[in-house]
Amino acid sequence: MSDIVTQVPHETDTASQPLERRRRAGGRGAERSRKPAGSKYLNLVNSLQKNVVLTPEALDDIHEASLTILEEIGMDIMLPEARERMKAAGADVTPGKDRVRFDRAMIMDYVGHAPKTFTMHARNPQRNVAIGGENLVFAQIASAPFVSDREGGRRAGNQEDYRKLVKLAQSYDIIHTTGGYPVEPIDIHASVRHLDCLSDMVKLTDKVFHCYSLGQQRNLDGIEIARIGRGISMEQMEREPSLFTIINSSSPLRLDGPMLQGIIEMSARNQVVVVTPFTLAGAMAPVTIAGAVVQQNAEALCGIAFTQMVRKGAPVMYGGFTSNVDMKTGAPAFGTPEYMKAVIAGGQLARRYGIPYRTSNTNASNTLDAQAAYESALSLWALTQGGGNFIMHAAGWSEGGLTASFEKFILDVDMLQMVAEFLTPLDVSQDALALDAVRDVGPGGHYFGTAHTLARYETAFYSPILSDWRNFETWTEAGRPTTYDHANRVFKDVLNKYERPPLDLAIEEELDAFVARRKAEGGVPTDF
Amino acid sequence: MSDIVTQVPHETDTASQPLERRRRAGGRGAERSRKPAGSKYLNLVNSLQKNVVLTPEALDDIHEASLTILEEIGMDIMLPEARERMKAAGADVTPGKDRVRFDRAMIMDYVGHAPKTFTMHARNPQRNVAIGGENLVFAQIASAPFVSDREGGRRAGNQEDYRKLVKLAQSYDIIHTTGGYPVEPIDIHASVRHLDCLSDMVKLTDKVFHCYSLGQQRNLDGIEIARIGRGISMEQMEREPSLFTIINSSSPLRLDGPMLQGIIEMSARNQVVVVTPFTLAGAMAPVTIAGAVVQQNAEALCGIAFTQMVRKGAPVMYGGFTSNVDMKTGAPAFGTPEYMKAVIAGGQLARRYGIPYRTSNTNASNTLDAQAAYESALSLWALTQGGGNFIMHAAGWSEGGLTASFEKFILDVDMLQMVAEFLTPLDVSQDALALDAVRDVGPGGHYFGTAHTLARYETAFYSPILSDWRNFETWTEAGRPTTYDHANRVFKDVLNKYERPPLDLAIEEELDAFVARRKAEGGVPTDF
Repeated sequence: MSDIVTQVPHETDTASQPLERRRRAGGRGAERSRKPAGSKYLNLVNSLQKNVVLTPEALDDIHEASLTILEEIGMDIMLPEARERMKAAGADVTPGKDRVRFDRAMIMDYVGHAPKTFTMHARNPQRNVAIGGENLVFAQIASAPFVSDREGGRRAGNQEDYRKLVKLAQSYDIIHTTGGYPVEPIDIHASVRHLDCLSDMVKLTDKVFHCYSLGQQRNLDGIEIARIGRGISMEQMEREPSLFTIINSSSPLRLDGPMLQGIIEMSARNQVVVVTPFTLAGAMAPVTIAGAVVQQNAEALCGIAFTQMVRKGAPVMYGGFTSNVDMKTGAPAFGTPEYMKAVIAGGQLARRYGIPYRTSNTNASNTLDAQAAYESALSLWALTQGGGNFIMHAAGWSEGGLTASFEKFILDVDMLQMVAEFLTPLDVSQDALALDAVRDVGPGGHYFGTAHTLARYETAFYSPILSDWRNFETWTEAGRPTTYDHANRVFKDVLNKYERPPLDLAIEEELDAFVARRKAEGGVPTDF
Repeated sequence: MSDIVTQVPHETDTASQPLERRRRAGGRGAERSRKPAGSKYLNLVNSLQKNVVLTPEALDDIHEASLTILEEIGMDIMLPEARERMKAAGADVTPGKDRVRFDRAMIMDYVGHAPKTFTMHARNPQRNVAIGGENLVFAQIASAPFVSDREGGRRAGNQEDYRKLVKLAQSYDIIHTTGGYPVEPIDIHASVRHLDCLSDMVKLTDKVFHCYSLGQQRNLDGIEIARIGRGISMEQMEREPSLFTIINSSSPLRLDGPMLQGIIEMSARNQVVVVTPFTLAGAMAPVTIAGAVVQQNAEALCGIAFTQMVRKGAPVMYGGFTSNVDMKTGAPAFGTPEYMKAVIAGGQLARRYGIPYRTSNTNASNTLDAQAAYESALSLWALTQGGGNFIMHAAGWSEGGLTASFEKFILDVDMLQMVAEFLTPLDVSQDALALDAVRDVGPGGHYFGTAHTLARYETAFYSPILSDWRNFETWTEAGRPTTYDHANRVFKDVLNKYERPPLDLAIEEELDAFVARRKAEGGVPTDF
C-alpha cells in the first residue's frame, strides 16, 4: 500500500469533547452528529510516496553537521531562565554569557521525547486537526503588516480587515486553522491587541488558533482565551493541546527572550510549539541550500530539544523556512527551485526525527499575476511531495509575506482544493473502468448522453472556484475577466454570505468578562 | 540510488555524425567541440522517484480491460492497406468492414517489440534527444489555429508568426525540439504548406522536428526534407530516426486513413511515431478518469502494435492525453486534478510496457493570468512526478491549445527551466554544508559579505526570466508590471537577438531545389 494514494480518515476525537460542554451546549449534540455543510476537505491525508533530494548518506551528513554546530559553535540563548533550564538538562552554560553549547547525544535524547503525532483541539471538535503522520493541515496566512484588495489597494493592517480575513478562513473547510493574525491590526494598541484579536478568533471562527510569543503575559492570556473558548478546565486543556505558537529563531543561531519564554509557557502546559528557523540562504544562512538546511536543522533541533527540557512529550513541530535571496538585490525569493529542494530536504529531516513537519505556501509577487500562481504552485508541489504536515501561510500570502491579499486568499483556496482533489484516490472500481459504457458507445460515438455519464457528470470532476473555461468569444463578451477579477468578486460574495459559527452564550459572556478585566488591568506593558 | 536525484548525462551520439558531413562542413568540426552558449538545459534527466495513482492490481485491471476492448469490441481501422497488414499479423478482419478485433496475446506480442529507448537525431548532433528511460524532453506547442501577443491580439495563424515562434524555439535550450507547426500558417496554400514549413524548420532551427500525417505524400516529403537537412543517406536516416509524427486516434476507438498511412510510411523507415489518443472524459471517452484511461490505453496499444506490425523495433512512444471536460458546458479542461491523475496513470502504463511516455503541458486560460500559470504548473507537477519522457506543447500553449501565445511561450520557458533546476542534484559536498562559514559568521551575524558567499553568489541560484522580486515601492515606481508585461518585453528582445544556426550552403541549396521542384509539381493534391 505504500505506493498508492489512499484516503484514511483519522480519528476526529469527538469522544474527547467534555461531557459538561455537551450538556451546557444544549442542542449542539445533535448538530455535532451531522457533518457541516462543507466538510469535504476536513481531515486531509497525503499518502503519496514522498520525494527525497538527499541520499541516506547526505541526510546523515546534514544531521551530523548540525549537531557539530550545536556542540562546537553553540547558540545564543537570550533568556537567563532558559539557560538555567538548559544547564540543568546538561548543556554547557557559562554564567553571564548567552552562548550555550549542547552535547549531540543530549540533544538527540531530548528530541526523542517529542511525540510523532498529536491532535490540536478546536472549540468545535469537527475542526480538530491531527498533526503528523500522513495528515495534511492548511493554516491561513499570518503576520502580514499590510493588507490589500483590488479596490482598496495596499494599506496598513487594521481591525476591520483582520476580521474580514478571519471570516474568510472560517468560510472554507480547506482552511483547517488560522495561522496567527492574518494581518497585524495596528489600529489596536499593542498592549491589548492580543486580547481583541484572540477574542475575535474564538467568536468569528470555531477553528484552532495561534498565540504570539511576545512575552509571558500574552502567552498566558492566549492560553486562557483558548480554554474559555473550549469551555474546559485547565487540566483538560493540558491533556488536549488547543493552541499553538510559532517560535522563530533569530538566525543565525540565536533564540531571543520572548521566543524562549513562549516555549516555556506553552510547552509547560502541553500546548503546541512550532519551531521555525527562518534561514534565507545568502543572508542569515550560508549561500548554499545544503548549508542553509544544516543551519536550519541546528536551530530547529535546539528549539525542539528545549521544548522537551521544559516538558517531556510536549507537542512540537519541526519548522522549515529555508529559501534563497535574489543575489542581485538581496530581496528574499520564494517558490523557487531552491525553495523546493529545501522544503523536501526539511521533510526528510523531520521524518528522520519522527516529528511533524511545518512548511509554507510562499510567493514573492506584488500582485495576483502568473508569478503569484507559479511560485505558489511550485511551493505546493514541493510541500506535498516532501511530506509537509502543517502548512502555514497556505492562503493569502502575497509579496513575500508583507501583504495579506484578499484575492490571493481565494486563489490559494482554489489551489489547495485542487491539491486535495489530486490526493483523493482514483476510483478504479469495475464500474469506473466503464467497459459496459464503452460497449454501449462503441467506435465513433460520444459519451455526452450515455447513462454512465448522466449518472455521474454532476460530481465527476472538481469544479474550480476561479478557472474560466469559457471559449474565447464568450469570455470576450464577458469583458475578458482574469483570475484576479474572479477572485475579487468571489471574496466579496463569500464575506457577504459569512455566518458566525454557533457559540454558547455562557462562553461568550465569560470571554467578554475576561477581556474586559484584562483591559482594565492595562493589558500588557508596552514601551509606547 | 533509486530514491535520489542524480544527473546522468546520456550518450549524445556525436560519433554518429557522418564523416562526409563533417568534411563538407569545413570548420564545423571545431565548432562542434565546444558546447553552445546556452547548453545548460540539454540532456535533462528526471531521476525523481515517480508517483503512482494505481495499485499494481488496478494497473492490471486497466491493462486487462483495455485488451478486452480490443478483443471484444475492436477498433475501426479506416484504411484498407492497414487492415490487410493487420490481418496478415493475425487480427480478426472482415472483408469490406472497418471493424478489426485483436487477440490480446497478439497485441502484447507486437507491443513487446517496441524499443525502450532510442535517440532522435537533429541536424546539429548536440541537439539530439534521448527518448525514454529517465530522459525528459520538452517540445514546443504545436498545431494552434490562432496566435496571439499583447499588441496584436488574437489572429489566425500565418507564416510570419509561424517563423517567429520557430525562432523562439531555437532561442532556448530548454526547448529541445519543435513539436509540429507552432501555429498553422493558413496564408500558405495547403498543397505546399508542409514544404515551406518544414524547409523553415531546417533553416531556422537545428533541432529535431515533426511532420504531420495528413496523407502519404506529406510524410514522404517530410522524410526527404529531414534527410536533406541532416545531409545523410536514406540508409543512415533509417538507422538514425530523425523525424517524428503524432498519430491521434479519432476517439472513441477509431484510427483514420491518414493516421494509419502515417504509421505505415514513418515506421517502415524507422522514423518516430507518437501514438496519442485524445480521450476527454465525458466527451469522447467515459466520464470516469479510470474509464477514459482504459480507452486511452486500448487505442494506444492498438496504434503501437500496428507500428510493430509495420516494422519490428520501429521507434514509438505511448501518448497520453486524457483530461476532463467542464460538465456545465462541455468545454475541455486542462491542468486539473483529474488531468494530474490521468497523466500519472498513463506513466504507470507506459512504464509497464517499457515504452517512452509522451504527455503535455496544458492549460485552458484565455489569457496570461494566474489560471494560465497554475494549470500549467499542475501539469508540470504531474508529468514530472509521473515520468513523462517527451512533453508536447511544453511552451506556448494557451486557450486549450487553440492559440499559440508569444507571452505564454516565455512564461513556460521560465517554468520549464525551474523544473530543470529542481531536478538537478543538490550539492551536498562538505564545502556546500558550509560548517566553516557558519563558524566564521557565528550567532547573530550575516552571510552577505562572507568569502563563502562571495565565491558563489553569482551562480548560487536560478535567475528567473520573469519573476519580479523588487519591493513594492520600487515595483510601483516601475509602473507595477505583471508577468504578462515582462513576458511581452522578453519575447520581443529574444526575437531581436535571434541568429540563424549555421547551415551548410550545399544543404541549403539542395533543400531549396527540392522544395522548388515539389512546388512545381503542385505539392500535394487538396480539395480546395
